[in-house]
Amino acid sequence: MQLAKVLGDVVITRKDENLVGLKLLVVQPLAADGSHVGRALVAVDAAGAGVGETVFFVRGKEASFPWYPTEVPADAGIVGIVDHWDLG
Amino acid sequence: MQLAKVLGDVVITRKDENLVGLKLLVVQPLAADGSHVGRALVAVDAAGAGVGETVFFVRGKEASFPWYPTEVPADAGIVGIVDHWDLG
Amino acid sequence: MQLAKVLGDVVITRKDENLVGLKLLVVQPLAADGSHVGRALVAVDAAGAGVGETVFFVRGKEASFPWYPTEVPADAGIVGIVDHWDLG
Amino acid sequence: MQLAKVLGDVVITRKDENLVGLKLLVVQPLAADGSHVGRALVAVDAAGAGVGETVFFVRGKEASFPWYPTEVPADAGIVGIVDHWDLG
Amino acid sequence: MQLAKVLGDVVITRKDENLVGLKLLVVQPLAADGSHVGRALVAVDAAGAGVGETVFFVRGKEASFPWYPTEVPADAGIVGIVDHWDLG
Repeated sequence: MQLAKVLGDVVITRKDENLVGLKLLVVQPLAADGSHVGRALVAVDAAGAGVGETVFFVRGKEASFPWYPTEVPADAGIVGIVDHWDLG
Repeated sequence: MQLAKVLGDVVITRKDENLVGLKLLVVQPLAADGSHVGRALVAVDAAGAGVGETVFFVRGKEASFPWYPTEVPADAGIVGIVDHWDLG
Repeated sequence: MQLAKVLGDVVITRKDENLVGLKLLVVQPLAADGSHVGRALVAVDAAGAGVGETVFFVRGKEASFPWYPTEVPADAGIVGIVDHWDLG
Repeated sequence: MQLAKVLGDVVITRKDENLVGLKLLVVQPLAADGSHVGRALVAVDAAGAGVGETVFFVRGKEASFPWYPTEVPADAGIVGIVDHWDLG
Repeated sequence: MQLAKVLGDVVITRKDENLVGLKLLVVQPLAADGSHVGRALVAVDAAGAGVGETVFFVRGKEASFPWYPTEVPADAGIVGIVDHWDLG
């Protein structure tokens, strides 16, 4: 999984029926020191995240597990809100 | 998922039988600010997208979900047309 | 999926039994303008491709779909021969 | 799989119910010579790893195998503690 | 799949029970011209490979196919020993 910051949301009118009603957010992956790293992507929200929050997201088919058995065609999903992380 | 712009289409005469009849488009991933990022790829279209439109696509096996139970050998699929996105 | 050029073939004598009899080709991914991009990889051929041809390949478990239900341990497979592509 | 060093842990209060009770660690992938390479990520711990230890982790759906049949929405999991590795 | 050179082996004492008894090797991906490319990784060996040999490996869940139905938590597996490859 990756730490990420929620940058904004996406308005998509025509979409696959299994995506209807789901919230889609633009997330920016973060490095361990909190800096931005790599490209932003779109994730479905399974954790009630909002813009500006730090989250962690999962890639791949696992992103659709929270909606199982519906086969949500998503490859990135927010599965938690991060309070903080500690580097030893 | 990734935001992307549809650059063009691909003409493929010999192909796997489960791809026959599907529209294949060249898409260019976009960064959060709308600039091009990374390499273009080929995606199957499940959303009725056209050249020049902004879309979002999914990678991996999830790309074949819209055609389930047909096992479409695709690893990237357009699943929505983007109206706009907002950065908070 | 990715556009690619077939660079050559691979001779592999000891291999997983589910790969026996399959043609393995070295393919070079192509950018939208036809230039080489990223690293070459080895793909199983499900489309009758030859050296020098432009093809498109799929990554991941989908690469083994053409041989279903045999569980071919392949993560890249050529599933079409490209005639040409058009950029709008 | 990738060799990695455990950098720290992550405190996540709101998360998918199938992640409750699991330990989430920040891991830094290592190159063959032990130097840091690529971006840090978050992995679920299936091996009892601690901060500062060298581990190896698996990506993708395989990361959830240790909790099967629970469908843990994780795409990276620590599956072993590394004593050392030898380069021939 | 990727061409790779076996660099060494990994000694891992605490690990997932489905990995016990499997040989884990450090492999370095190779470009089409035989030069090193990208980062080294750890792969399970399904082909009887040794240090210094040229192999090809598969990524993802496919890496566990040779041990099916055991759910080996591996995302990279050596599935063949390469004699040579020819570029046309």
